[in-house]
Amino acid sequence: MGGKTGEVCIKPIGIIRSPYRSRKTAPKQGFLADDVSYVDLSPEYELGIQGIVVGDILDLVYWMDRADRDNLFNDEKKKGIFATRGPDRPNPMGITPVEVLDVAGNTLKVKYLDALDGSPVLDIRHSLFDSFGGVKGKKF
Amino acid sequence: MGGKTGEVCIKPIGIIRSPYRSRKTAPKQGFLADDVSYVDLSPEYELGIQGIVVGDILDLVYWMDRADRDNLFNDEKKKGIFATRGPDRPNPMGITPVEVLDVAGNTLKVKYLDALDGSPVLDIRHSLFDSFGGVKGKKF
Repeated sequence: MGGKTGEVCIKPIGIIRSPYRSRKTAPKQGFLADDVSYVDLSPEYELGIQGIVVGDILDLVYWMDRADRDNLFNDEKKKGIFATRGPDRPNPMGITPVEVLDVAGNTLKVKYLDALDGSPVLDIRHSLFDSFGGVKGKKF
Repeated sequence: MGGKTGEVCIKPIGIIRSPYRSRKTAPKQGFLADDVSYVDLSPEYELGIQGIVVGDILDLVYWMDRADRDNLFNDEKKKGIFATRGPDRPNPMGITPVEVLDVAGNTLKVKYLDALDGSPVLDIRHSLFDSFGGVKGKKF
């Protein structure tokens, strides 16, 4: 972080493996598909996932490296991009609640993730949705 | 973005003005306090907030520039940091659902934000909590 007007530089903590190779094949929201994805955490962060167990709901924060960062307006919804969750935005982060299916070493197996294959992972965190009966516990 | 192992560099889109000058004075979760904060968007992004209206629930993503980035384990909870929402983590982003109280030019007036005064804003997005009866509609 280089001061209030400077850039924030983030080192990815891992990489996502998913069945989605292009935006056309990815679901609009993660909870609309039951596909399985994997989060390969870089080994130096393995201590950070201690205590994560099967069934946990986590928010996965990832970088949408194939997004259009110059877009500020959603023509279809006739709204500014910050009033939506569209992927094309100045700082294109995906923030998706996922359910943990397995933890093996430094790899998390999850469902409901909507990230493209190869997306860098920026953060993993306990989800506020954990108290809502899971990702699919409510319609949203 | 400089490739899969490179850093992701993010230009903040604005700055937060809040009543919290230190971590001791900030609430543990934003919805635990009714204090009012302001998001001053940089003028070049003003088109992006068109369509945001009073009562909207937005997720504010901000950079916690006073966090300890070397922390991987929460000693109190005896869990890795990625199993928690604690602020001290390798890439310290705050992701907080807020309610819009007013929109004036390029400034949003919001409540339930837990950010320290002066925190850089990375993204603003429609919240999945918008369908849950608001930020305080459910306990979480």
